[in-house]
Amino acid sequence: MTKYVYQFAEGNAKMKNLLGGKGANLAEMTGLGLPVPRGFTITTEACTRYYDDGEKIAQDIEDEIFATLAKTEAEIGKQFGDPKDPYLVSVRSGARASMPGMMDTILNLGLNDEVVEGLAALTGNPRFAYDSYRRFIAMFSDVVMEIEKAKFEHVLDTVKEEVGAKLDTDLDADAMKAVVARFKALYKQHKGVDFPQNPREQLIEAVKAVFRSWNNDRAIIYRRMNDIPGDWGTAVNIQEMVYGNMGETSGTGVAFTRNPATGEKKLYGEFLMNAQGEDVVAGIRTPQTIDQLNEVMPEVYQQFVEIADKLERHYRDMQDMEFTIERGKLFMLQTRNGKRTAAAALKVAVDLVAEGMIDRKEALLKIDPKQLDALLHPTFEPAALKAGKSIAKGLPASPGAASGQVYFNAEDATTASERGEKVILVRLETSPEDIQGMNVSQGILTGRGGMTSHAAVVARGMGKCCVSGCSELSIRESEKYFLVADGTRFNEGDWISLDGSTGTVYAGAIKTEEASLSGDFATIMEWADEVRTLKVRTNADTVKDSQVAVQLGAEGIGLCRTEHMFFEPDRIFAFRQMIVAKTEDARRTALEKILPMQRDDFAGIFKIMKGKPVTIRLLDPPLHEFLPHEADEIAELAQALGISSEQLQGIINDLHELNPMMGHRGCRLAVTYPEIAEIQTRAIIEAAIAVNKEGLNVAPEIMIPLVCDVKELKFVKNIIVRTADLVIAEAGVDLKYQVGTMIEIPRAALTADEIATEAEFFSFGTNDLTQMTYGLSRDDAGKILDAYYRVKIFESDPTARLDTNGVGKLMKIASDYGRATRPNIKLGICGEHGGDPASIAFCHSLGFSYVSCSPFRVPIARLAAAQAAIAGGDTLGQK
Amino acid sequence: MTKYVYQFAEGNAKMKNLLGGKGANLAEMTGLGLPVPRGFTITTEACTRYYDDGEKIAQDIEDEIFATLAKTEAEIGKQFGDPKDPYLVSVRSGARASMPGMMDTILNLGLNDEVVEGLAALTGNPRFAYDSYRRFIAMFSDVVMEIEKAKFEHVLDTVKEEVGAKLDTDLDADAMKAVVARFKALYKQHKGVDFPQNPREQLIEAVKAVFRSWNNDRAIIYRRMNDIPGDWGTAVNIQEMVYGNMGETSGTGVAFTRNPATGEKKLYGEFLMNAQGEDVVAGIRTPQTIDQLNEVMPEVYQQFVEIADKLERHYRDMQDMEFTIERGKLFMLQTRNGKRTAAAALKVAVDLVAEGMIDRKEALLKIDPKQLDALLHPTFEPAALKAGKSIAKGLPASPGAASGQVYFNAEDATTASERGEKVILVRLETSPEDIQGMNVSQGILTGRGGMTSHAAVVARGMGKCCVSGCSELSIRESEKYFLVADGTRFNEGDWISLDGSTGTVYAGAIKTEEASLSGDFATIMEWADEVRTLKVRTNADTVKDSQVAVQLGAEGIGLCRTEHMFFEPDRIFAFRQMIVAKTEDARRTALEKILPMQRDDFAGIFKIMKGKPVTIRLLDPPLHEFLPHEADEIAELAQALGISSEQLQGIINDLHELNPMMGHRGCRLAVTYPEIAEIQTRAIIEAAIAVNKEGLNVAPEIMIPLVCDVKELKFVKNIIVRTADLVIAEAGVDLKYQVGTMIEIPRAALTADEIATEAEFFSFGTNDLTQMTYGLSRDDAGKILDAYYRVKIFESDPTARLDTNGVGKLMKIASDYGRATRPNIKLGICGEHGGDPASIAFCHSLGFSYVSCSPFRVPIARLAAAQAAIAGGDTLGQK
Repeated sequence: MTKYVYQFAEGNAKMKNLLGGKGANLAEMTGLGLPVPRGFTITTEACTRYYDDGEKIAQDIEDEIFATLAKTEAEIGKQFGDPKDPYLVSVRSGARASMPGMMDTILNLGLNDEVVEGLAALTGNPRFAYDSYRRFIAMFSDVVMEIEKAKFEHVLDTVKEEVGAKLDTDLDADAMKAVVARFKALYKQHKGVDFPQNPREQLIEAVKAVFRSWNNDRAIIYRRMNDIPGDWGTAVNIQEMVYGNMGETSGTGVAFTRNPATGEKKLYGEFLMNAQGEDVVAGIRTPQTIDQLNEVMPEVYQQFVEIADKLERHYRDMQDMEFTIERGKLFMLQTRNGKRTAAAALKVAVDLVAEGMIDRKEALLKIDPKQLDALLHPTFEPAALKAGKSIAKGLPASPGAASGQVYFNAEDATTASERGEKVILVRLETSPEDIQGMNVSQGILTGRGGMTSHAAVVARGMGKCCVSGCSELSIRESEKYFLVADGTRFNEGDWISLDGSTGTVYAGAIKTEEASLSGDFATIMEWADEVRTLKVRTNADTVKDSQVAVQLGAEGIGLCRTEHMFFEPDRIFAFRQMIVAKTEDARRTALEKILPMQRDDFAGIFKIMKGKPVTIRLLDPPLHEFLPHEADEIAELAQALGISSEQLQGIINDLHELNPMMGHRGCRLAVTYPEIAEIQTRAIIEAAIAVNKEGLNVAPEIMIPLVCDVKELKFVKNIIVRTADLVIAEAGVDLKYQVGTMIEIPRAALTADEIATEAEFFSFGTNDLTQMTYGLSRDDAGKILDAYYRVKIFESDPTARLDTNGVGKLMKIASDYGRATRPNIKLGICGEHGGDPASIAFCHSLGFSYVSCSPFRVPIARLAAAQAAIAGGDTLGQK
Repeated sequence: MTKYVYQFAEGNAKMKNLLGGKGANLAEMTGLGLPVPRGFTITTEACTRYYDDGEKIAQDIEDEIFATLAKTEAEIGKQFGDPKDPYLVSVRSGARASMPGMMDTILNLGLNDEVVEGLAALTGNPRFAYDSYRRFIAMFSDVVMEIEKAKFEHVLDTVKEEVGAKLDTDLDADAMKAVVARFKALYKQHKGVDFPQNPREQLIEAVKAVFRSWNNDRAIIYRRMNDIPGDWGTAVNIQEMVYGNMGETSGTGVAFTRNPATGEKKLYGEFLMNAQGEDVVAGIRTPQTIDQLNEVMPEVYQQFVEIADKLERHYRDMQDMEFTIERGKLFMLQTRNGKRTAAAALKVAVDLVAEGMIDRKEALLKIDPKQLDALLHPTFEPAALKAGKSIAKGLPASPGAASGQVYFNAEDATTASERGEKVILVRLETSPEDIQGMNVSQGILTGRGGMTSHAAVVARGMGKCCVSGCSELSIRESEKYFLVADGTRFNEGDWISLDGSTGTVYAGAIKTEEASLSGDFATIMEWADEVRTLKVRTNADTVKDSQVAVQLGAEGIGLCRTEHMFFEPDRIFAFRQMIVAKTEDARRTALEKILPMQRDDFAGIFKIMKGKPVTIRLLDPPLHEFLPHEADEIAELAQALGISSEQLQGIINDLHELNPMMGHRGCRLAVTYPEIAEIQTRAIIEAAIAVNKEGLNVAPEIMIPLVCDVKELKFVKNIIVRTADLVIAEAGVDLKYQVGTMIEIPRAALTADEIATEAEFFSFGTNDLTQMTYGLSRDDAGKILDAYYRVKIFESDPTARLDTNGVGKLMKIASDYGRATRPNIKLGICGEHGGDPASIAFCHSLGFSYVSCSPFRVPIARLAAAQAAIAGGDTLGQK
């Protein structure tokens, strides 16, 4: 039979999945012999059972709760609900992962009209007893019964006014009794029944409330943001009350063993005498810093310092602790690994190694790779931010902070930038035509599109701050203004600020400060590089991106898209000439104009990369993306091209596709227009030959996109090889190069054994592969996913993470098949997932050679790869 | 070492893959001791080697050819190129599968200026010798050297005129010599060199020409149409010449052992005395029927009858034979299983069983299931067709013949049909809005779209003739006319005729005759049903289709689409009200209007199906398909709906998707609007309850489309089950029903183990599954595939057949995973491939329960399933 309830003495820190973080640590501290009030934990499995049973606590679980309660009563020699020697408890939630924003704590549970009198008699302190009772009534009503907290606060304020009291502490016992009476009346007014007097009923209702709180809106959103599965459930901790509000020898506080903001090794925290935990939070009185406790109660302070030290050594990590002092006696109510800033995380990890407490590998495992992002981008100056007025919230699409004047199209943004203005580009959604405008902007704000929209993906690639999908705003692109929810209008040229790490949009300019990478950052990266086996490359299309990526530790380029090169203003016209050309000759003539420019692009990138591997992907997007769609632009372009608007419109219509994502793009372009692949190959090979003459040793990797069959791969590869060999022969030099393919169509994965006969490397394009495997276009997914979140089918965008269950199976098949044909085939990933720690761990498990991600994700990937190597041990590929 | 050349005596009929059909049968006849002129076969492997070697005959193969030639020379005691006793040969191609439209035969090879004199001397017949020589020069020039045949015919005509001859036979030896001289001059004029005098050179050039002919345009197109792989290659047969033109005791002919048009058991064929094979074809003289040979040469006739009988018994099938009589001696030049009409195929198969020559299973294997199609649709009256004028050719998208007056939109077609006109609907392409118009038409003609376009798929479903992708026509829908290539204009109301089996469009009306299913058809179907293990269901959405399908033997409905039910004129308005509704209540109100109509639809189908299983799929297409897209229609509808045009346009814009195929459709609609699933479930269950009260025993199968994750399946299933159980409880009856899912998204296949925890059956939707697995939208594939054909990456549309290599792997994974979770899970296929024999064999091998196809493919599927059972033996599912 499943055991659903554990006394603290029965558990330990390893039972976190079952007991939740708080419960497991209470058990662990109990086992360490620390002063922990007794209690027990109702397991996370009881919570999932509660939901399986249709939101009911089954009789067997209820029985087990009360049996454990009885056992605890026997041990401490008190009876729950006994007025003579009251046994009161706190009820707290505690999930596997810490989840602030879930439910509040309920204190003093077990009090009723009788017990409160007993408590008054026993302590000789009626004021304390009724203070505790009124707190309990308010908390229970709010948390369990969902009666607004403010209503109780209002009653309290009224009483204070009536008796002329300023602080709560000014209220005497009689006043507290009056408050209790009015609170009970308020309860009855709302619920139609009296406040529950049966402590056992109070307890079960409180437990249910904790279980329910697992699925409140805040918790769901928090889980979605933090990838916490909805089926984990929460545990509930029932613990004997101790009182920090029993007079001047009592108190309560919280403390970290080190400074969570900086990582400095020094006890950090605060406490309040004669108070319960909620008073510390409420800020009615100003708490004292933890070292002042040494003056107030030196012995208790000394004991606490020893416990803190013991806990840190025991857990081998910085601890975040809660404690209460009841009439001079110290009780520990919680300990856990403390949350910390990115900077603190690095310092603590490095220091713990220096102190000999942990080794380097353990240090690496203590840092959340995603946190590093915060260190790599500008942030608002904290002081300046306080004055900022938030006007809207969108998705945190690309991290960093930025201020600028708003412009509503790429052209205006570019012009303003040329005038020396700082620009925020505001668009309903962006398209490849906006690249130039995005590039000159400080940040990008869009009204539509998710975390994987064009704006988000490109901004992340550029390392530029972006808030996407900000649907609260009414953006009028053509009229050049937007409205916020309250109707305030922002016109072209007005200042706003964006926080791409939170998705917040602010009115006005807010000062930002640049990222600076401390010595701890470099140390951790060095350690990570020592242990990881996965190489980390970057997705970079420009010299600038490549430069940034190399600085951040990129060991090569895993994906150099070439389409952006065609959008550059100095060549898009030639490319448009190519698109409208009727003959191969005309197409070649147009392409020849682009050749030298593209060659220079590649040469620039090769030089930055100094011989590190560079994978260049041939042109991928459908051609219609290169042509305008508005009537006036069409007319203008038609004139420039020397054809009629009708002709150009006809060409655009011909290029229109019902499902462009599954249409004429990728290598299908090279099959239709082999001259594009030819010119691109020539540009790549000529660039490589040129830079090698300057002493580099570049061996380009040419990548063919969107392959679904080995025959098309072979066809395009033949064009590349023929052209490359010709160029190499012309130059009379030696040059090595490789030809490989993206695996981004399910069939390529399923026939990878055949594909590998031609491909010298595979690069998994998990963006497209995920969309096709799911049959879900990310451009169209927004509305669909909203509905799916609403009814809880999905808790977060299933395509944002590498879906190991579905897409991962295809990757495994492709890896196995590919290796069966070509045992040493190089495997990599260049989709967005290449920068996601969980996905990196999966790639490590498949024995990939490298992951490739946007420049600013390179450090994250380096750390994640190290963690995967430490945690995962050997990989499939090495088996 | 690979053996590339086989003497006839070394081969047999089983070596068809290596020797080609003709070569294998010549070997077999040689082995049977029949009078076959000696010779040898160069294998198909030599052909593929020829291409692998860059279109060259490798030295080792050439050596082997001449070595075998020498061996044959020794055996027959003649020397190739010896003027004294000439040894002449014919050179003929012969692929594994018979491929008319490949290369022509070359006769009399080995003749040159010297040898012809020898032949004249030896036969004492200079006219014969020079006649043979001039024929050889013309054939060699045409077939090997690609000099136009007409040029030689022109020279011949000129000589005939000069000497006053009417027939070729009127030319004497001198005239023939003159012809030879002029032919040689013509050759030199074109090639710049003399006609090759070296017989060995002639031979090798001829062999190369045969190899080359494998990849001529006609051959490629023929292969694409008949699914013959391009890498098979052709064999070449070199055979000693025998002469039917050696005077009045010589002749040549062709004959079938039975009548290939009717199947009647009676020798059928014709012959010509003093002629070579080409004369029979050329039709210069009228041949005699084969039984007249009994009068001309009774002994030879008797011998031929015996050989024919022997061959038919030996091959146990109707034979198609070629023979030559040289100076009274009979030679067999070819035998093969004769091509026959569908009707003949059935009769021959049934008769052969009756004659005890084969058993029923063998009989079933002798019929090409695809041929049956011809028996199920109307055809043009042969006499009427002769007068028909072909005006254009499109794709044979849906078989049958139809005549009617052209209309250019669904509305006009409907009105005309109501006036009693016969209508041909002509559209650029069709969309779901055209269903009604298609339904009232005799046939459909479209300017765009392939064999899997909307028009093609729906027409096949309706069993209606359709010619699609007829790009030669300039169709002006709004101006209501079309132009053919020569500029002729067809206006609304003009008559045209369509042959959906060939893709031909004719001007004017042509009389058609209805299909009649003979007794042999019923017999064969009965035999097929005895042996097959796969059930055959149909895809049918209407009472009419269901009725047709049942008549054709459908054992249930595997796919009843419900979207067409929403397009019906009497309900589309209510459905549009639902789409524009802002609240769930308003949506429900609109849907309630459709409920009774849809219930009647289902009841009608259930009644026709009389308790046979019926799988009904919930609404699948994106909602935008139900709204108009033209400004005037939008305005009209907005008014009817009581909203502004701008509002309606806004709704339409909101519904716009970049990739609708991977967008908001399928079960995603049911997640967003559960009330749609509810109402549909209610309609289905109420209909079932109603018909069961009338004594039927319907257990509906409700199918959820486009599932990618078990959680969404579970969500929608819960709606269905909740609703169904409620309706059943309301009615107070017992009703069984099942809930299953389409497997049409790759991820559904990859996670089929999870999906099967909820799904009671899987139905593979291979249309979408194929498109997503290939990353290729069939609506956009036309232009792409044209390019792929041109450069020979693909030989035919790779998505038209079930792609066992890629999509098939997903199906295998899904079948295995599904059975692992639910061992008895019912597996079926309802994509277009469900009617394709090769795909049916694959489904049989996976142990599927059933295939489902359009009504008119049901007989094909029954036969194909029987063939799969006979050929495949056990299935994976039964292992």
